[in-house]
Order: sequence, then structure tokens, then C-alpha cells
Amino acid sequence: MVNKKLIVELKSILKDNQLLIKDQILNRFSHIWKTDQPLQAIAVTFPETTKEVSDIIKICNKNNQEIIVHGGLTNLVGGTETKKNQLVISLEKMNKIEEVDDKSRTITTQAGVILETLINAAAEKNLLLPLNFGARGSAQIGGAVSSNAGGLRVFRFGMTRQMVLGIEVVLPDGTIISSLKKIIKDNSGYDLKQLFIGSEGTLGIVTKVVLRLQEAPKSRCSAIVGVNSYELVVDLLKFLESELGGNLSGFELIWKSTYNAMTESSELIKPLSNNYEYYVFIESLGSQPKQDYDLLENRIEESLKRGLIIDAVMANSDKELKQIWQIREDISILASKAKFDQHFDISLPIPKIGEIIDSITKELNKLNEVKTIFPFGHIADGNIHFIIGRDKNTPKLIDLINSIVYAPLKKFKGSLSAEHGIGLDKKAYLYTTRSKEEIKLMEQLKKLFDPKNILNPGRIIF
Amino acid sequence: MVNKKLIVELKSILKDNQLLIKDQILNRFSHIWKTDQPLQAIAVTFPETTKEVSDIIKICNKNNQEIIVHGGLTNLVGGTETKKNQLVISLEKMNKIEEVDDKSRTITTQAGVILETLINAAAEKNLLLPLNFGARGSAQIGGAVSSNAGGLRVFRFGMTRQMVLGIEVVLPDGTIISSLKKIIKDNSGYDLKQLFIGSEGTLGIVTKVVLRLQEAPKSRCSAIVGVNSYELVVDLLKFLESELGGNLSGFELIWKSTYNAMTESSELIKPLSNNYEYYVFIESLGSQPKQDYDLLENRIEESLKRGLIIDAVMANSDKELKQIWQIREDISILASKAKFDQHFDISLPIPKIGEIIDSITKELNKLNEVKTIFPFGHIADGNIHFIIGRDKNTPKLIDLINSIVYAPLKKFKGSLSAEHGIGLDKKAYLYTTRSKEEIKLMEQLKKLFDPKNILNPGRIIF
Repeated sequence: MVNKKLIVELKSILKDNQLLIKDQILNRFSHIWKTDQPLQAIAVTFPETTKEVSDIIKICNKNNQEIIVHGGLTNLVGGTETKKNQLVISLEKMNKIEEVDDKSRTITTQAGVILETLINAAAEKNLLLPLNFGARGSAQIGGAVSSNAGGLRVFRFGMTRQMVLGIEVVLPDGTIISSLKKIIKDNSGYDLKQLFIGSEGTLGIVTKVVLRLQEAPKSRCSAIVGVNSYELVVDLLKFLESELGGNLSGFELIWKSTYNAMTESSELIKPLSNNYEYYVFIESLGSQPKQDYDLLENRIEESLKRGLIIDAVMANSDKELKQIWQIREDISILASKAKFDQHFDISLPIPKIGEIIDSITKELNKLNEVKTIFPFGHIADGNIHFIIGRDKNTPKLIDLINSIVYAPLKKFKGSLSAEHGIGLDKKAYLYTTRSKEEIKLMEQLKKLFDPKNILNPGRIIF
Repeated sequence: MVNKKLIVELKSILKDNQLLIKDQILNRFSHIWKTDQPLQAIAVTFPETTKEVSDIIKICNKNNQEIIVHGGLTNLVGGTETKKNQLVISLEKMNKIEEVDDKSRTITTQAGVILETLINAAAEKNLLLPLNFGARGSAQIGGAVSSNAGGLRVFRFGMTRQMVLGIEVVLPDGTIISSLKKIIKDNSGYDLKQLFIGSEGTLGIVTKVVLRLQEAPKSRCSAIVGVNSYELVVDLLKFLESELGGNLSGFELIWKSTYNAMTESSELIKPLSNNYEYYVFIESLGSQPKQDYDLLENRIEESLKRGLIIDAVMANSDKELKQIWQIREDISILASKAKFDQHFDISLPIPKIGEIIDSITKELNKLNEVKTIFPFGHIADGNIHFIIGRDKNTPKLIDLINSIVYAPLKKFKGSLSAEHGIGLDKKAYLYTTRSKEEIKLMEQLKKLFDPKNILNPGRIIF
């Protein structure tokens, strides 16, 4: 049942190309992996300014109309799914970069700009936007901020939260909170932006941000090494963090099963034999190409001498560097190894990860329906992704696998979602790593900001 | 009027040495600079556990008793001041470090531990707690977290916010929110700890924290350089950030007037002549003592060649390093140059600071009562401290000076408090850099958490 009054009111504030209704929305979709499934929605709106976002929200609020926010549609926890009675606000027309300031080292942008576009705009001025993850070519910065995206360089540069200096958001009642500051430090009262970063669009819609940039590094050196025990992986991380000063920027781990699955593919190289228990990808970013290469090489030789690692290959060209990192990054290969796949994104204290993954793997191996188990991840951040392949796809099996993977999280004070968020898909498990007091406080906050529960309803809590 | 029932209830849950009343509190005080002024309060309580903090708050809540939280009493904006009808919760008996975990690189501690004690405990395990500011020998970590303290290494390591991985807080109704996690990434729902960091104890009392540590650096190199225009200071920052890779950890600026005042003191050395407009203190922290020294020296020579700087001195020993940094750090010398002094702690976009400070100085110089103007600060963070000496001490003059210093902040999107917070002292000026929509949202949050306004009332908003 389309609310005619709602559409009339929307038409009064939007241009023709800013509103789709009925059949017009059928060639849209709710996720970049679901392009064969037409979008369900009452209408799709395309504001071009923060003021238009506010006007749309005010109309929806008055009409008790539920809103789902669409960015680059790369969310991995169902955050962009819609019901047919919901209205979509897509930020794709808010795609202007307002300024790259090379003296303040900041970029000011509308929320609908694609992450890679921002990375490139910064690079043109010899600056680095360190936010970097697989979906960078599709994800919009507003979504990255709303979900506090992580990625490959969190260890050194932090998650999105750490890069956000200024923000503009629209609250569920249409109020615009605008604080587009370029300053690094601001202790003048509550740091309200923290509430909107990572809350998955449930408290407000991010429409603009100011992000902190870094001077572009002049060297990028990489290596892949083989290690035979998890304890040594932890020791190696400690050793390299200590020996590479501030240059260590990546320390990624894949388990043997994952390495084998990746390198048996004809597309990828196989720089090390498949005899080792763990494979670590190391990256340093620095200012002196030759010295930084020598330093990494020297410290890797020292790691060999000390018995921290058994084997190593350094990348000697940009091509080799790319080839090595593909083994870590092209994870679609892992998902293709079984009929169905289930993804995890857990956090744990770094020293405990080896034994916990071993015990989870052991439990999962007891299930006949589980065909493949591929752990890998941002180990320096304590964040393990996990792709589990199955030959069946029943809700009961999915739940069983969830419960096995999530079982140790409470005891070891981990998180069921390091990066991806809760969305719709993990809501039922939120209690596994958040206390009832915390969840109650989240509910109170949501009620304060959105008493009618019209903005991204169903996500995280209710 | 002491509420007898309140005292009876407190006595029922606290030991004798955990409660002071009447004359017993007269040898206590509200600030380390006001030790000659006896504390005003109904009672002072000394909980030893989070549970006891909760029990005390519950009793206060029931009795509508206002609470002021006391840590190391180093707050610079009146945050620890009390009225005689208020009760103090002092965290000084919550002074246990629970764990230094050298594999996870974390420290878990009660809130009443002195910052310097934590720094030393980390150093014993060859780890660095990068939080470092003048009051480290007195400030308690709970206060540092509640006020999101900054200091000398924010540029590289961030403010306190960036170091807090886990937190335990007690809400104004006594609810304990405990999330003492060691994990770096957690996107499972709202990141509640962000609400308590920097909200100056108005939303809850921090009782425990888990902080992220770094591997201890192996080299510390420093230099002081003379520069003749503010634009060149900005260029130098950009050059060094680019050339020192991840090692640049300090870039502090003092203006000519400040350098002269510091070095005319007989206690401090004078490494450079006093002819330059600006003096920059540079610090790098790295992993290779000789190479890091050579790199900094080489880049300083290059800066001379390029005309970025006019003169430079490198520290060649720990002693020289200390002597150089004293010129930046011993700011009590500046306060002693006039009868009365007024301190500022503003944030501005880095490229604008030179001209704004010039114009503020020009305005201030028009006032006969202003005798000295000493700007200095964490320029790489865009944070300028400012000590203004006066020979009069009237509220009207103080207000006038405030209005001159704060005047450009709104236009240039700065902050009236980069580090110190709002407390009681700056509340009247909060509107200068926060919008009415932001302040309304702060008020709503405070009401949600503390409807009776019993916890640190009067701070920040109401």
C-alpha cells in the first residue's frame, strides 16, 4: 500500500530524476551481489544536498515512513536489504568532493563519493587516505563511516573512526548536525560524531565528512614468510613492530589450508612451498625506498636466524608485490571451493587466536556438511575472517556453525564483528559479546534519536 | 545541611577509612594548585572496587545527592571544584594495575592509578604508553580517559581516546557497564565507550580501562630549529612528515616572544639565537639509533638548503635532549612573568594558525592591562596553548580577553578547547564552537544518562 500523500509530498521537493516509484525501481537492487533480484521499496529518492536529505526525512517522519539508506551496497551483514513498504534514500547523487587540502592534510567530501575516488584524489596531491579494503571500488565513504570500516592498514592508521575529523549528519527528525571541522583535537563537550561512526545509519544519515590524510609514503616493501607455530607468529609481530619503528603497516596471516586453496588456483603464484602452518604477509610503508627495503630484508634474515620464521620471499618489484598480496586478497577463490559459504569476522586477543581457531576448526570438522574451513585475517588487529564452505544450506546448519564459531567469544572477551557490523544478519547474536546492560543502553540511545524507529529499522537492535 | 540518612547509608557499605565527613575533610582540597584552600563537601568517599562505586552512586541517586568525582585533581577547567552540599567520590584507592600483557600489548588498570605509574609499568616490559603530558606525575588515568587527555605525542599516537580498548564505567543510576576487552576492533553495535571518553565524568564514572600499548622505541632524536615565517613552519611539517616516514612523533612550535621569555631565564639553555620568528621542536622515535639520527640530521640539513629553516641544533645526548625540551615544557616560567595569567587551549586548522594568532595578538596588545602574550603549542595537531599575562584581575577584563581569543574560532571552524575540556570554566563559551543543534543533543544525552543531574553537575552543559 503506497502512501499517496507521501509520494505527493516527495514530488513537491524533488526533481523528476530524484525520485523513482513503482516499475521505475525494478532495475535497481539492494546489494551488488544481488543484481538479479529487483529492489523492493515504495520509492527510491536521490537527494543532492544535506538539506534535501533533511527534507525527505522530515516528510517520512511525519508519515511514519521507514527509511533504508543506500550507499555502495557492499555491506556484508544485510544492512542494505529492504522491504516493499520501505523507502530508500540513496546517496549516489551526493558525489562531490568539496576540497582536498594538502596543507591541512584533509579531504572534505559528500557521503556518496566512492572510496577509491577519494583515494585517487588524495594521491593526486601526494597524500594518502589510508582506508583500504576490498570493496573500495564500489563502497561509498558515507557507508564506510557509518559502518566504521576497517581493512588492510588498521594496525598503523586505525579504522575509519580514526580518520574522521568532521561530520555532517541528518537525524531521524530531520535536524542537521553539521560539524565539518578540519581540526585534529576537539574536547569542547561531547564528541557527538563518535555516535554516528559505526552505528550503521541507525542514529542518523552521514551526508558529509572531513577525513584526515597522511603524506604519501615513498616506499612500499612487502614479504611473505612461512611460520610453523602460532606462538612464533605473535613473537614475529612483536619483533617486527619493535624493529621497523613506525613503518610497519601490514601484518596479515593466513592459515595453511587457506594458503593451499589460494595457491592451487592457476591464477595465483606460489611463492613459498605449502609445508608451513602459517603464512604471514608483511608490509612496510616508509620514506626511503632503498633503506626501507634493506631494513625489512635484514630483519627478515634476522627472523630466520632466530627461528621465528622458516622461509621468506621479498617482493622485488611492484608486480611481485601485487602477486604476493593477491594470495591474501583474492578471497573470492575461497568462497568458490564449496557449494555454500558462510563468512565470519571475529575479534579476539591476539595471543589467544591460534588455539581458539584450532578448537573451532576441530568442532567444525565434526560436521559432515562442512567441506572447507579457511581462516585468514588482520592478525595484528586481532581480527580473523573465516570462510566456511558447506554442501547444505539449512537455517539449522547455519545456526549450528554460528554457535560453534561464536562459542569462545564471550569467555575470551572477543567480538562477533570486528569490522562488518551487526546489520540484520548478526542481530540475533549481539548478546554473545555485548552485555545486557550494554544492549539496554543501545536501545535507550536508539529510542532517544529515533523514537518512531523509522531510520534503518531492524539493524543492530530493533 | 548534611543529610544524616545519606551518611548512615554510606557508613553501612564503607569501611572507616573509606569515608570522611565534617572536620575530616578539611585537610583535603579540590585542586593540586589550591592546597591552601580546604575542600568543601558533605563527605568524601574512597571506593576500592567498581561495585563500591556503584553502591555509593545508588545511595546518592536515591537521596538526590550531587556527586563530584576526584582523580589526580589536575583538571584545568574547574572540573574538580566542589560546593559544600556535594559529595566527593575519590578514586585514589582504586590504584591497582591489573595486568600488563606484553603479547597483546595492553595494560589493564583501575582508574585511580597515576599516569606515570602506568608509563613506568609498561616501560618495564619494554612497552610504550604514548600518553604523555605535564601532569603525568599526578593525573590519574580515569581522569585522563574522562577528559580525553592529549599531550606531546598526539600527532603520531592520538589522544587518549585512541588508546582505550576496553572500559568499565558506572552510570548515574549505579548500573555497571563493563567491557574490559583487549581487542583493537569491535563493530558489534554502538561503541559505547566513546560516550564516556572525553565527557568529563558527566555520563558515568570510569572505574577501569584497558589501554593499547606500543613496542618501546629504540631511538629518540630531537632538534630545535629556527624559522622565519609561519608558512615555512607548515611547509617544514609537511616535508618532515613525508621524509621521516612513520617516525615523526613530535613537532611543537613556540613563537619568538615565548622563546625569549623561556631562554632569558637563568635555568634554561639557549640553543639558538633569539632572532627568529618561530622555533620548532622536532622529535622522532624509531628502531635504529644511528640511522634515525643520521636521517633526521640529513633532513634538517636539507631543510636548511631549501630555505625552510634558518638555523638548527640537534640534541647529541640525553642531557641535551632534555635541555632542549625544557624550553617547550617548563611553561610555569611563562605564567610567572605577569601578576595574573589566563590560559587558552584552542584548536584551528593548521595553515590558518599563523595569521589568526597574529591578529589575536594585535587585538590583545591594544589592552593596557595585557602585559605578556605567549603562544606555543602542539602545532602538528593544530592545537595552540596561549598564556596571557595581565596586571589586573577583573571579571570584565577576563571576559574581554576571552572574547578576543575566541572571536575567530567560529569562522575558521576551530575549537575553544582542544585538550582541556569545558568543565565549569568554559561552559559559558561552549556555543562559540558548537552549534545549538549540537548543544541540544548534548543536553538530551545528559538527561538520558542522568535525569536527576547528580553526576558532576554544572560541567559542560548543566
